[in-house]
Amino acid sequence: MQRFITVDNLDLEINKKLLLPDDLFHHAVHVLRMKIGNQFELVDATEQAYVCEIETLTKKEGTIKVVSTIDKNPELPINVSIVCGVSKGDKAEEIVKKGTQLGAASFYFINSKYSVARWKNQKQNKKINRLQTIAKNAAEQSHRLKIPRVFWLNDFSELIDKSENYDLKLIAYEESAKQGEKSALAQMINQLRQNHELSLIAFFGPEGGIAKDEVEQLTKNQFKCAALGPRILRAETAPLYLLSALSFGIELE
Amino acid sequence: MQRFITVDNLDLEINKKLLLPDDLFHHAVHVLRMKIGNQFELVDATEQAYVCEIETLTKKEGTIKVVSTIDKNPELPINVSIVCGVSKGDKAEEIVKKGTQLGAASFYFINSKYSVARWKNQKQNKKINRLQTIAKNAAEQSHRLKIPRVFWLNDFSELIDKSENYDLKLIAYEESAKQGEKSALAQMINQLRQNHELSLIAFFGPEGGIAKDEVEQLTKNQFKCAALGPRILRAETAPLYLLSALSFGIELE
Repeated sequence: MQRFITVDNLDLEINKKLLLPDDLFHHAVHVLRMKIGNQFELVDATEQAYVCEIETLTKKEGTIKVVSTIDKNPELPINVSIVCGVSKGDKAEEIVKKGTQLGAASFYFINSKYSVARWKNQKQNKKINRLQTIAKNAAEQSHRLKIPRVFWLNDFSELIDKSENYDLKLIAYEESAKQGEKSALAQMINQLRQNHELSLIAFFGPEGGIAKDEVEQLTKNQFKCAALGPRILRAETAPLYLLSALSFGIELE
Repeated sequence: MQRFITVDNLDLEINKKLLLPDDLFHHAVHVLRMKIGNQFELVDATEQAYVCEIETLTKKEGTIKVVSTIDKNPELPINVSIVCGVSKGDKAEEIVKKGTQLGAASFYFINSKYSVARWKNQKQNKKINRLQTIAKNAAEQSHRLKIPRVFWLNDFSELIDKSENYDLKLIAYEESAKQGEKSALAQMINQLRQNHELSLIAFFGPEGGIAKDEVEQLTKNQFKCAALGPRILRAETAPLYLLSALSFGIELE
């Protein structure tokens, strides 16, 4: 069933009837061509999902009735933020789209030293807004309760400030993989498995890799280098490995 | 360092000098503009990696010398095959590219019941050949020793015949995720962790999902339904989740 997530608080409860908010009306009726009697899932700012049914429709508005609650919580039980050095092409879109399906809580992007395609001032906002829309759509498609937030970071000192809010800090570092490092990620996931209140921030380099002085700056601030297996992963694959490993280690094992 | 993988047996050993095979000459010299003295990694049919150095170059050929062996083995220790119902667009390319980075041994594609974009007879070969090239490039980039093989399957009975060669058989089934199934994947990974000789074949539906009678046909033939976490993953994300979880569970934990 189609799911919509809105950041408005609609005070939903079973049997409540309400006007479809404008953006939902457009998407449900004009894009998806829903009719009277069709049902969909609706999540509002309280992060509770409900099944709703369309009761009336005119050309300009529609009313719905809340039919039932959905009690399943598909959110990754820990708060994970993904920080990526900017890469070429549509890699950021791909990371946000798949990372949202895999449960990330937020995404940060930053021009790092070896970023081949840097985002200049004038296009940072536009890029972040577009990524925020991708996150919303992906959250709806993967039936999440939360839309991940997407942010821009101006520089490494801003990244380090942000990282103060996290309990665990990780750098996905290719050199660690080359040196056969194996235990850092498993140790972190073990900590997270034992305490779902802990949060994690993970830094990933762009396709050009991470500069030594960037690694030093981060490790001085409690970031730990970790290998994501022995093969060399591309910039857009590494965050998906981390999130999949987190889900498997915490949700399934 | 750039890695090349060839399926020829070049009888490589330290200090051996040899003519660069034609395809490697083209790639190294014309595409990557390598010069005398440049080094690269070379893996031949024996799946051993060596560092080689270019010794002589003319317009038409080059000779190299084998400098040293590389003893690291980055291959996923178990044999995993990914079977995908054909999806729209470039999803097959994405699955092969990222799945190769994540260690898959082979890929199979099949027109399944809910495939929106079916591959017709005349384009199956072309598609498979293109995917095989993508697998080779991705294997070189992720510094593997093996190029995964890519195959076409004509129908489900051919899939079931193939699956006889595998010890463990999995269906990534959305309905299992919806019903809160949690333990099947962890159980399989536990078996694989204890015995690296076991092999795994995993079936993934196209974007339209898996038909009930397809699931029945597979489960009758020892395939087990497994959820890949509680969120709904898209067709091109699910195989990456499985391979990442396998790598984490078997190589890092």
